Amino acid sequence: MEVQVMGSRIMLMGFGNVGKGFCSLLSEKNSMLKEYYGTDTKVTGITTRTRGCIYDPSGIDIDLLLEEEANDPQRSLCELPGFSAICVNSPYELVQKGKYDVLAECTVTSLQDKSAGLDYIRGALSRGKSVITTNKGPIAFHYEELLDLANKNNGKILFEGTVMSGTPVFSTSVNGLCGSSIRSFMGVLNGTCNYILERMIEGQDYSSALGEAQKKGYAEADPAMDVEGYDSALKALILANVLIKTSPLNLEDVQIKGINSLSPEVLKEAIKGKGRLRLIARGQLDKNKKSISVGPEIVPEGHPLYSLPGATNGLVLETDTLGTVCLTGAGAGSRETGFALLNDLVTLSRPGYERRVI
Amino acid sequence: MEVQVMGSRIMLMGFGNVGKGFCSLLSEKNSMLKEYYGTDTKVTGITTRTRGCIYDPSGIDIDLLLEEEANDPQRSLCELPGFSAICVNSPYELVQKGKYDVLAECTVTSLQDKSAGLDYIRGALSRGKSVITTNKGPIAFHYEELLDLANKNNGKILFEGTVMSGTPVFSTSVNGLCGSSIRSFMGVLNGTCNYILERMIEGQDYSSALGEAQKKGYAEADPAMDVEGYDSALKALILANVLIKTSPLNLEDVQIKGINSLSPEVLKEAIKGKGRLRLIARGQLDKNKKSISVGPEIVPEGHPLYSLPGATNGLVLETDTLGTVCLTGAGAGSRETGFALLNDLVTLSRPGYERRVI
Repeated sequence: MEVQVMGSRIMLMGFGNVGKGFCSLLSEKNSMLKEYYGTDTKVTGITTRTRGCIYDPSGIDIDLLLEEEANDPQRSLCELPGFSAICVNSPYELVQKGKYDVLAECTVTSLQDKSAGLDYIRGALSRGKSVITTNKGPIAFHYEELLDLANKNNGKILFEGTVMSGTPVFSTSVNGLCGSSIRSFMGVLNGTCNYILERMIEGQDYSSALGEAQKKGYAEADPAMDVEGYDSALKALILANVLIKTSPLNLEDVQIKGINSLSPEVLKEAIKGKGRLRLIARGQLDKNKKSISVGPEIVPEGHPLYSLPGATNGLVLETDTLGTVCLTGAGAGSRETGFALLNDLVTLSRPGYERRVI
Repeated sequence: MEVQVMGSRIMLMGFGNVGKGFCSLLSEKNSMLKEYYGTDTKVTGITTRTRGCIYDPSGIDIDLLLEEEANDPQRSLCELPGFSAICVNSPYELVQKGKYDVLAECTVTSLQDKSAGLDYIRGALSRGKSVITTNKGPIAFHYEELLDLANKNNGKILFEGTVMSGTPVFSTSVNGLCGSSIRSFMGVLNGTCNYILERMIEGQDYSSALGEAQKKGYAEADPAMDVEGYDSALKALILANVLIKTSPLNLEDVQIKGINSLSPEVLKEAIKGKGRLRLIARGQLDKNKKSISVGPEIVPEGHPLYSLPGATNGLVLETDTLGTVCLTGAGAGSRETGFALLNDLVTLSRPGYERRVI
C-alpha cells in the first residue's frame, strides 16, 4: 500500500535527557518514519529553561546539534558553532507564533511549580496544534481541561511517556483493552525506588543505594520526588484520571508513603521473607468511588510484580474481560522516554486514530 | 465529543466456546459500544459445522439464542425454539451473499485441515468486507495473501485472538511499539502446557495432569495440538510473520518439541532446581534470517516468564528502543478469546486506524 507522506514540524520544549533521546531517535528513525508511517519530520524549534532557544522554520540540523552539544554540554544552544544565527529569546513566543504542527513538551516535572510546562501546552492546543508530552504535572493536574481544549481546537494531546517511560501503558490499556473496564491497577512505577529497595535488601544502606541510583541516571532531578513517593503518586493520578471517566482526583486524595522512612522492622521482614519489597501504587477505579495510594509493600513470589530487576517498572490491570493483565518494561532512561514521544508522534500521524477511555 | 453511531452487522462463523463468549460480550457491552465507540452492532448470521446455520438480516436475538442454547447445547441451532424460521443451508452462501459488514471467524484450527475457515475469510475479503478471526491456521499460513486481498478490496483483517486469547499482543506490539524494531521474542503461548507442567512439577503424572487441563476447558479440541507443541508453533509463526515484514516462514521451518515426551532427567532437573519448566516459543526476527523454535526450557527465577500461574501466557519482546518489554495475561477461555473479537471489532470502527508493522 502507498503511504502518503505528510510533513510534521516539531517544536521541542526541553533539551535534557528526554529531549535529546527523542532527537537522536528522530534522526535514527527518520527514513523508517517516512516509509512506514508517512511522516516526514523536522524540528523547527528547541527551547530550554537556562540554555537559550533556537528556531529555524526550515528545520534545525539535529545531528550537528547533538554532536556539538555532546562536546560542550553546559553551553547555551545559541553559542554552539552553527546555531548562533537562529537564536531567539522567548519560548512562549515560539509556542504562540512559531511554525510547527506538534509541540513536544518535555519540561521537568516539579512539585514546587505544579504548572511548569502547562502554559506551553495550553498555548499550542489553543492554536489547534497537537501536543505530545512526557511531563507529568499538566496531565496529573489538568487532564480534563487539556483534553477539552484539544477537542475544541481539533488538536490532540498524547502522553505515553508520563508513566513507565516508553513502555506502552496507555496504548495497551486504552487501545489494547478497548471495550474492557479496568477495575483496578497496581504498579511499580518508579525505577529509582525499585533500584534502591533491591540494593537495600542486599544489605546496602539507604543513602549509598540512593547515590548509586543517581549515578546511574535513574533518579529525578529532585530525588525527594522519587523516594518520598510523589513521582509514583503523580503517575497513579494520571492512570486514575485517564483510565476511567469520572471526576478527577487530586494529589491531596492520594495516601502517600515513600521509601525514605522505612521502618527497620519492615526491612527486616523483607530481608528474611520470601517476598520482595516494592514501592506500590494502587488504584481502585469504581465508577462511584476512585481511590489511590502509594506505599511500600512486600510482593509475594508468583506475583507479576515479583520479578522486576533494577529500574524495571510494571503495571497490573484487573479487567472485567480478561482478568489480570500485566505489562513490564523500562521505567526510565533517555532513549526509552524519548521513544514515548516518537510513539505518540507516529500515533498522531494516523488520521482518525484516537485513544478513547471508558 | 459527539460520537457518530455506525451500524455494524456481524456474520459469525463458529458457535463454540469462542463464538458464544463473543456473543455474550456483545450483549453485555452493547450500550457501551454505542456510547463510546459509535458502533451499533447486530449479528445477522451464525454458522456452525455440525449444528446448522441461522440468518436474519434484521438481527438475531442473541440473548434468546444463548439462553435456549444453554438449555440444550447439543441441538441444532435451527431446532431451538424461536429460530427454525431463520434456518439456512450453506455457510459459504451466507459468506458470499449474506448481509453483513464484518465476518467474525472462529472456526476451530486444525492441522489435518490447514485451510479450515480460509475460504470464508477469502470470500468475505473479496466482497470488501472486513474480517476478525481467532482461527490460527489462515493467519499462520496465509497472512500475506489475506492482507493483500484485504488491502485490494478496502477491507481489513484483524486477528488479536490468535495469540494469547484477548491479551492485547498485537495491539501492544504493533501499535504500542510503533517505531521500534522487535528483534526477538520468547513466549509461553499455550495455557494447557503451562498448566500441565506446573502439575507435573508438583508430582502429578502426565496423563492425569492432561486430564485435569481438559476438565478445566483449557485444552484444544485435539490435545495433540497443545502437548506436541503445534499450537505454540502456529502462534510463533503468526508472531514472526506479522511482527516483521520479510518472506514468511512455514510450519516446516519451525523446530518443534512438545511436552509429551519430556525425558525423566529434564523433569528431575526441573523439580530439584530453582527454575520453572515451561514450553517456550522463541523467534529471532533478523531482517535477513528469521528463525523459530518451540521446546521445553527451564526459566530461571527473576525472568519475566518465571511467574505464570495456571494457564496464564506471557510474551517477552526484545526491542531496539525500550530493551525488554513483557506482557502477561489470559491465554485461553471463552470470555477472554471472545473479547479479542470485541476488541478487533472496536478497532475496525475507528476510521483510518490501522495496525502497521515494520
